[in-house]
Amino acid sequence: MYRTHNCGELRAEHVGQEVTLSGWVQTVRDKGFMMWIDLRDRYGKTQLLFNEEQTGEELFAKARTVGREFVIKVTGEVIERSSKNPDMPTGDVEILVTKFDILNAAKTPPFTIEDNTDGGDELRMKYRYLDIRRNPVQQNLIFRSNLAIETRKYLADQGFIEIETPVLIKSTPEGARDFVVPSRMNPGQFYALPQSPQTFKQILMVAGMDRYFQIVKCFRDEDLRADRQPEFTQIDCEMAFVTQEEILQTFEGLTKHLFKQTLGVDLPDFPRMSYDEAMQRYGSDKPDVRFGMEFVELNDVAKGHDFPVFDNAELVVGIKADGQADKYSNKDIKKLTEWMQRPQIGAKGLVYVKVNGDGTFKTSVGKFFDDAALQKWADKFEAKAGDMLLVLSGETDKVRSQLNDLRLEMGRRMDLMQPDDFKPLWVVDFPLLEWDEDSNRFHAMHHPFTAPKKEDEEKMLNGDHETMKSLRADAYDMVINGSEIGGGSVRIHDRKLQEKNFKLLGFTEEEAEDQFGFLMGAFEYGAPPHGGLAFGFDRLCAVLKGQTSIRDFIAFPKNNQGRDMMIDAPSHIDDTQLEELHLDVTAEEKEA
Amino acid sequence: MYRTHNCGELRAEHVGQEVTLSGWVQTVRDKGFMMWIDLRDRYGKTQLLFNEEQTGEELFAKARTVGREFVIKVTGEVIERSSKNPDMPTGDVEILVTKFDILNAAKTPPFTIEDNTDGGDELRMKYRYLDIRRNPVQQNLIFRSNLAIETRKYLADQGFIEIETPVLIKSTPEGARDFVVPSRMNPGQFYALPQSPQTFKQILMVAGMDRYFQIVKCFRDEDLRADRQPEFTQIDCEMAFVTQEEILQTFEGLTKHLFKQTLGVDLPDFPRMSYDEAMQRYGSDKPDVRFGMEFVELNDVAKGHDFPVFDNAELVVGIKADGQADKYSNKDIKKLTEWMQRPQIGAKGLVYVKVNGDGTFKTSVGKFFDDAALQKWADKFEAKAGDMLLVLSGETDKVRSQLNDLRLEMGRRMDLMQPDDFKPLWVVDFPLLEWDEDSNRFHAMHHPFTAPKKEDEEKMLNGDHETMKSLRADAYDMVINGSEIGGGSVRIHDRKLQEKNFKLLGFTEEEAEDQFGFLMGAFEYGAPPHGGLAFGFDRLCAVLKGQTSIRDFIAFPKNNQGRDMMIDAPSHIDDTQLEELHLDVTAEEKEA
Repeated sequence: MYRTHNCGELRAEHVGQEVTLSGWVQTVRDKGFMMWIDLRDRYGKTQLLFNEEQTGEELFAKARTVGREFVIKVTGEVIERSSKNPDMPTGDVEILVTKFDILNAAKTPPFTIEDNTDGGDELRMKYRYLDIRRNPVQQNLIFRSNLAIETRKYLADQGFIEIETPVLIKSTPEGARDFVVPSRMNPGQFYALPQSPQTFKQILMVAGMDRYFQIVKCFRDEDLRADRQPEFTQIDCEMAFVTQEEILQTFEGLTKHLFKQTLGVDLPDFPRMSYDEAMQRYGSDKPDVRFGMEFVELNDVAKGHDFPVFDNAELVVGIKADGQADKYSNKDIKKLTEWMQRPQIGAKGLVYVKVNGDGTFKTSVGKFFDDAALQKWADKFEAKAGDMLLVLSGETDKVRSQLNDLRLEMGRRMDLMQPDDFKPLWVVDFPLLEWDEDSNRFHAMHHPFTAPKKEDEEKMLNGDHETMKSLRADAYDMVINGSEIGGGSVRIHDRKLQEKNFKLLGFTEEEAEDQFGFLMGAFEYGAPPHGGLAFGFDRLCAVLKGQTSIRDFIAFPKNNQGRDMMIDAPSHIDDTQLEELHLDVTAEEKEA
Repeated sequence: MYRTHNCGELRAEHVGQEVTLSGWVQTVRDKGFMMWIDLRDRYGKTQLLFNEEQTGEELFAKARTVGREFVIKVTGEVIERSSKNPDMPTGDVEILVTKFDILNAAKTPPFTIEDNTDGGDELRMKYRYLDIRRNPVQQNLIFRSNLAIETRKYLADQGFIEIETPVLIKSTPEGARDFVVPSRMNPGQFYALPQSPQTFKQILMVAGMDRYFQIVKCFRDEDLRADRQPEFTQIDCEMAFVTQEEILQTFEGLTKHLFKQTLGVDLPDFPRMSYDEAMQRYGSDKPDVRFGMEFVELNDVAKGHDFPVFDNAELVVGIKADGQADKYSNKDIKKLTEWMQRPQIGAKGLVYVKVNGDGTFKTSVGKFFDDAALQKWADKFEAKAGDMLLVLSGETDKVRSQLNDLRLEMGRRMDLMQPDDFKPLWVVDFPLLEWDEDSNRFHAMHHPFTAPKKEDEEKMLNGDHETMKSLRADAYDMVINGSEIGGGSVRIHDRKLQEKNFKLLGFTEEEAEDQFGFLMGAFEYGAPPHGGLAFGFDRLCAVLKGQTSIRDFIAFPKNNQGRDMMIDAPSHIDDTQLEELHLDVTAEEKEA
């Protein structure tokens, strides 16, 4: 037996007992005739005392050979510490060691195993087994496990059945790029890894399972950004015989449960905001509503002052930064303007107005607007002395998007986004289709299986091209603190409507039949009304813990090249393996 | 709202209430002025009554248009049935329908949606959404979901953390064939799908997670037998600082919990049997111990009677079929002998002895054995009148394997294998290595990460070739009713031992380093002793429900060609997709 107790459980009441512990050496303090070791495991740390006299010379000498991260097993008596450590749950006691074994030696780790480590990202990923020994990473993984447990508990209590859908499915060009898997038994053919179990969960509704969920890996072969992973996890859910209202209630309930059970936080009822309203007030379909700084539209007071930039703009719109006037020198404003002009944002310029409070203003557009004119702006913003207005103008969609970036940046600078201040929100009434000027076609705003609102069905089946742009869907996103943590929709369950949607999305009849014939076929055999939602589970973990990166909630993340640094994957495979798969590699590998 | 209640919950106490139900039309009985529909959903069936007078003519006419599997929504009053149906939980009541909507029509299903359907396997897989509507399949999926819930509950209570390991990993030629995934971003390189998370769970032990589990999809590109699937699910577990004993206790506890919670069955403590004993007594490392019929070795009484077949055999061994003497005519025995001589089994012949009970015997080897000699056989078997002995001879391993087949066949014929009689067993002390004559090399009996028993370590590091065949491992299988439902081992956690094992298994140093260098590296940074186990989850479901096929416990199984009949995968992919992946297909697809 390696242990009678773990390293986190001994207390004063254990004094006098003989115990055996195993774990990792965290620190060694050698005072000559006495030596202390902090022994660590997942459950905590316990102080070991080696006393030359009581431990015995031979063992003592052996104990002196251990270094950081050695794995040892000790037996000894629990004794009261002379100087207690109130910061450590086991701080009242220590173990006077009488038996001692080195279970495994350790080389010196390439970075420190401490809460704040000196290891860089790539090094930490290469030695992920050392990185996970660090308490913050370990606690993140435990948190993730608990979050999954609570998710399953809630959904099972609500009658949801967890059903595993296949990982080896069929490639469909719609959406992001699929990872594919060559089939040895079917030469020239490929499986695809699922981007989501969407069609399978709908099939399960047609199959009468009524309420489905799954915590499930999904895959997207995309060019990776810092916070994207080629494999990620979803809480995937679907319900039959429900309206949007019942779906929102169910998953608002789930989210409240998760916050309560894992953080002890009582979330309020989630406000709802239409997509149109979110775009108008925040310039984003995932507004961070921890702070106000809402958009104020200025067309009526900004146009007609012979300032061509405004006069030619579709929209003049701004935000008010409370009390920031004094904090921004001309140089600061110039810098902020340049920040807005970077290609990532692409604003043409930035107009500012500082409210002096005595009826006068300091502004970059003083040439066109006198104080009386600017007072009208200030009134619209309900601005007071010391406030600063930041105003953009241009084409509506673009300027809203730019102002969203500015609003978030100002929120960060003004420290208005507290990680433990949770402000959830439903964004609803999304458009069904999005017209893409570049490719001259519609894209599905949510996905091709989303139903139009009941009252728009007729329009969708029989309307003209322009009408299609106005179709609204029972589609919804759950947004917390500016992160979209879940989204879903009521689905189409009628073959005709689904065919029409594929047609609008540019599928030929053959393509639609080839890729989704099974689903449309299923709709002909008694498909119930249904809808659902999927949460990004990695993101959900990060948002609950008030963190921005998902990577530390994933045990073995991949880097931005999609590479697992620890196992060094992907890698080359044998030629015989390629042959069995009926494949040739056409490109020479780039040298590493 | 589509329903106030589901189709399984209305009782006598609901009489008088107005309710709304939605579901599928199971049956229609039309009596002219009255009509009954059984409405079905996941929760049950409820009888609907359409009465021309009270339902209204228009609705009544519309109701008459519905057929099997139509999806409808009805509102009406719960009334007491005149003729109650005690076999139906809702059998006391029916709904007098006053409102009625067809939510979706249905074509006539290609097979009946009944417990016993007329649909064949392939048809059922193609229309899996209809097959799952059938109660037995639906109940299997619900059972599977419950089994997963109970598994997680037990393991979480025991301090196990569920951690997701990656699906896109690295290909290693050891073991079965990997499915591979070409990497677009790394031309010429491939990920592999995991055959199990083995190395990752060991890494998690090195990382200090202490207790890990995961219910996880695994993948093997093997030629499929009836009961194999290219993707399957494991309950995968690992523990640090444990001996074999603690592992066995933990997972015996899990298994008892699962049987108790899902079936209400109290399993006894699991007997343990060494691998050697299992092979000697049953000729199998997964003996079905629901019945005896144990092997009796006859070398001492069978040899030396001038019967060359026995005299030249390494082993003469038989079983006793109680009371079967009268049931087997000469013709029956001939048939049984031919069954044993099929290539799948490959026995050379079959010797029988029928015990007459008066000191005489009827046998195929009377020429060599008189009654006195046969009495010695009978004594060894403790045979009584009417029993039949069936005896094989030959090379030990082969003859045991053949006799195992015969024993199981006799068990089936004699109805000794009741599906609800659960007889669990641990088979322990497996050999570490298995010598393969054909390839002239060792194979890992469990896998390359299995540790030799502590007392065999020295022999393994320094012994000669022959010694290696005698190494024993702390490896164990959990066997229930002749199915191996789980297996595992204590692992190597020392670099030198792991290197030696790879060498014995025929790896060059370079191959070992290339494929498993990360693991051996991890062993140098403080790896704790650890071990674990994995259950085949699909198999576990089937064994608990007393069924032999795993297919009906998988929502969307693939057929024997690895094909998903419903979505028709695998399939061809676009040339542009192939190009992006830097691949050429070398083989022309065979015509379908």
